[in-house]
Amino acid sequence: MSTADLGLPVDVPSTALFTDQYELTMLQGALRAGTAGRRSVFEVFTRRLPNGRRYGVVAGTGRVLDAVENFRFDEGVLHFLRERRIVDDRTLEWLAGYRFSGDIWGYPEGEVYFPGSPIMRVEGSFAECVLLETVILSILNHDSAIAAAASRMSSAAGDRPLIEMGARRTHELAAVAAARAAYVGGFSSTSDLAAGFRYNIPTVGTSAHAFTLLHDSERDAFRAQVDSLGGGTTLLVDTYDVAEAVRTAVEVAGPELGAVRIDSGDLLLVAHRVRQQLDELGATGTKILVTSDLDEYAIASLAAAPVDAYGVGTQLVTGSGHPTASMVYKLVARAASTDPRAPLVPVAKKSTGGKTSVGGRKWAARRLDAYGVAEAEVVGTGEVPAELADRQLLVPLVEGGEVIAREPLDVVRDRHAAARAGLPLSATQLSRGEPVIPTEYVHGGSGS
Amino acid sequence: MSTADLGLPVDVPSTALFTDQYELTMLQGALRAGTAGRRSVFEVFTRRLPNGRRYGVVAGTGRVLDAVENFRFDEGVLHFLRERRIVDDRTLEWLAGYRFSGDIWGYPEGEVYFPGSPIMRVEGSFAECVLLETVILSILNHDSAIAAAASRMSSAAGDRPLIEMGARRTHELAAVAAARAAYVGGFSSTSDLAAGFRYNIPTVGTSAHAFTLLHDSERDAFRAQVDSLGGGTTLLVDTYDVAEAVRTAVEVAGPELGAVRIDSGDLLLVAHRVRQQLDELGATGTKILVTSDLDEYAIASLAAAPVDAYGVGTQLVTGSGHPTASMVYKLVARAASTDPRAPLVPVAKKSTGGKTSVGGRKWAARRLDAYGVAEAEVVGTGEVPAELADRQLLVPLVEGGEVIAREPLDVVRDRHAAARAGLPLSATQLSRGEPVIPTEYVHGGSGS
Repeated sequence: MSTADLGLPVDVPSTALFTDQYELTMLQGALRAGTAGRRSVFEVFTRRLPNGRRYGVVAGTGRVLDAVENFRFDEGVLHFLRERRIVDDRTLEWLAGYRFSGDIWGYPEGEVYFPGSPIMRVEGSFAECVLLETVILSILNHDSAIAAAASRMSSAAGDRPLIEMGARRTHELAAVAAARAAYVGGFSSTSDLAAGFRYNIPTVGTSAHAFTLLHDSERDAFRAQVDSLGGGTTLLVDTYDVAEAVRTAVEVAGPELGAVRIDSGDLLLVAHRVRQQLDELGATGTKILVTSDLDEYAIASLAAAPVDAYGVGTQLVTGSGHPTASMVYKLVARAASTDPRAPLVPVAKKSTGGKTSVGGRKWAARRLDAYGVAEAEVVGTGEVPAELADRQLLVPLVEGGEVIAREPLDVVRDRHAAARAGLPLSATQLSRGEPVIPTEYVHGGSGS
Repeated sequence: MSTADLGLPVDVPSTALFTDQYELTMLQGALRAGTAGRRSVFEVFTRRLPNGRRYGVVAGTGRVLDAVENFRFDEGVLHFLRERRIVDDRTLEWLAGYRFSGDIWGYPEGEVYFPGSPIMRVEGSFAECVLLETVILSILNHDSAIAAAASRMSSAAGDRPLIEMGARRTHELAAVAAARAAYVGGFSSTSDLAAGFRYNIPTVGTSAHAFTLLHDSERDAFRAQVDSLGGGTTLLVDTYDVAEAVRTAVEVAGPELGAVRIDSGDLLLVAHRVRQQLDELGATGTKILVTSDLDEYAIASLAAAPVDAYGVGTQLVTGSGHPTASMVYKLVARAASTDPRAPLVPVAKKSTGGKTSVGGRKWAARRLDAYGVAEAEVVGTGEVPAELADRQLLVPLVEGGEVIAREPLDVVRDRHAAARAGLPLSATQLSRGEPVIPTEYVHGGSGS
């Protein structure tokens, strides 16, 4: 894929600078020490879910594949590294030829995860793998945090559609990724045109309070909008007096008015009043969209209200209290020498004070109970027990540097819905709790 | 400035799709209704600071100027809008010629702000101004949230330098903006190479646990790093046993070892022990860098510890609990007709249930007490009182579509330090409280 295919509004000529400097200085040190070529296994995992959350959602995998494919050090980047004396000439020369040539396995995008789940596994020389740490974590930590919030909101919304409207509350490009992650988590559409362009997500939007205020009266504004967008449009009815606005809206658009939007006030109360008023005016098919500071709890509290759709902004793009996942990228095994036949040695940080890891290259499988419901996330090294062989979670994503697992976003979205449906029902309770299934570790014979 | 000058790793051919769809449908409605040309004033402000915060920090202004200059609808974008039938042909034709030709005033970047501060004011036709809502808010809301956290952390750190290390915890491009905002807020450097490239922020970094684990022993790893980066490097000493690592580090690098980094454990305790050990080994000039899950409170709690520098990641890039500012972009005045001589009419949303605004084009000034310390943020419409005339906060940023206020980031950083120093001392207390100065509204005669 050419970098141009990454799409507007941003063309990324290279992802190679989405990198912490220490990755390059480690490379330099390893090249000099003769250890850069040791075969290595890095894994992405999290030690814990955000406090109170029952499951995590893997999102961003597709973006990681794009980033790895476009991780190249062109002349502009090399010039910068040389001029700033970040690494020496030998390292610059090595970087100039960089192409990831290893293998990446991972949980398929949309899958759920738990503490310790080996969400992604990157294998190759130490040199080629160590450089990918930051860009992989940036993407997975951001996108998974948003998708997890989206998933909870979509559980709470049930069959009612959710619109992603948070672009204005986050970095302009994080917003595009957030709209994508929200779609994976179950949202139906986005207000963000860049996300529509880049990922073909359905886009929606009609008008803001400014449109009403621009005109000499609310009636003029509604007339202008209906003239322009037709009677099936959504009119915003809370600029002045809601009841008067609803009356005017139905007068202007007729009882076939598509929808009204309520963006402030006591949504539960206002939605009931507006529904009653619309029905009395004969606009029984007119829908009600609410959009004011919603999160999963507010959505759930409106379950019994006559609301047809939700627009969610701030709380979606900020992960509803958890704007990042805490995934890390750790070396878990490496060869004892650069000999290609050298066996892998499991490695792990061992100091006291937390942040310890489990060494060794891991597999993972989800064990089901007699009813087919997930009962444990089993993570192990060595041989996979026969009874779990067909429940394994990691799939190949990149083979010998070639991306082999691109897939449409709708497939990912459906996978997430299915994965969530396979968890115990309490997974979708919004109340705080432990991970809905435990993680069990199995240490196999071969150790790596 | 050409779009190419926006710099790697991302070339933004256009910012025009960082836009919520409703801005385009409002444009279409206004074009059809004949109201699109009404002179309009939009203002960016926030109704409240994040809960407990004493002041806000304006950041992102420079990025807004880039975004406005590059807000163009090229053929690829127009094709998308046409194909998806987002707007009609007349609107597409209007968009094809879009260049912002109005004026933008704002608080200079780095300045502090309070509830109601008119942080930015955009004036021009309704059509040209309404389109900029999302991209302006995305940038200011994200960058200001990060800068506010950075400012609190730099207050807490005093003279000790702060390193931004959060790229892996946020979207890969949000990370670049976050490093920039952190620098504005008082950080000294970043680990993010893209931020070094794009904004010329000093970059730092040496090694991670993976480098130690790659080698056959900690000693081998330290030797490899010192061979590569010299004895002035920073060695990471908490992979296995800290005391043993410190001893090995000084043996390998000699007492002129630059620094050691501690990334886990009880930092207060470990820092004291490591300092004592270093001193006993004669490495009295070796500095101690700590980097484990720090926020402004943890930094403050280490004030008496023998720590020389702090590296901050997650809590910086997530705004230390407040990952977004709540700035809005509201129409506050517009002409009664498209006649260029038509006077401006103040406008504001008026429904009950919160989210009301103050209409009219505003000025702002910071009133000082007899000691020269800020005592009130005065926001008004109409004439500026003579005694506040030279304390006004808004400066011209764009004039007739031309950006006139680009400035180096160091100027912005110094401005923030000066602005914060001009606040009452309690501004820098970390405890929760009200905004450190009140906002006073003055309604002048002319009303707009």
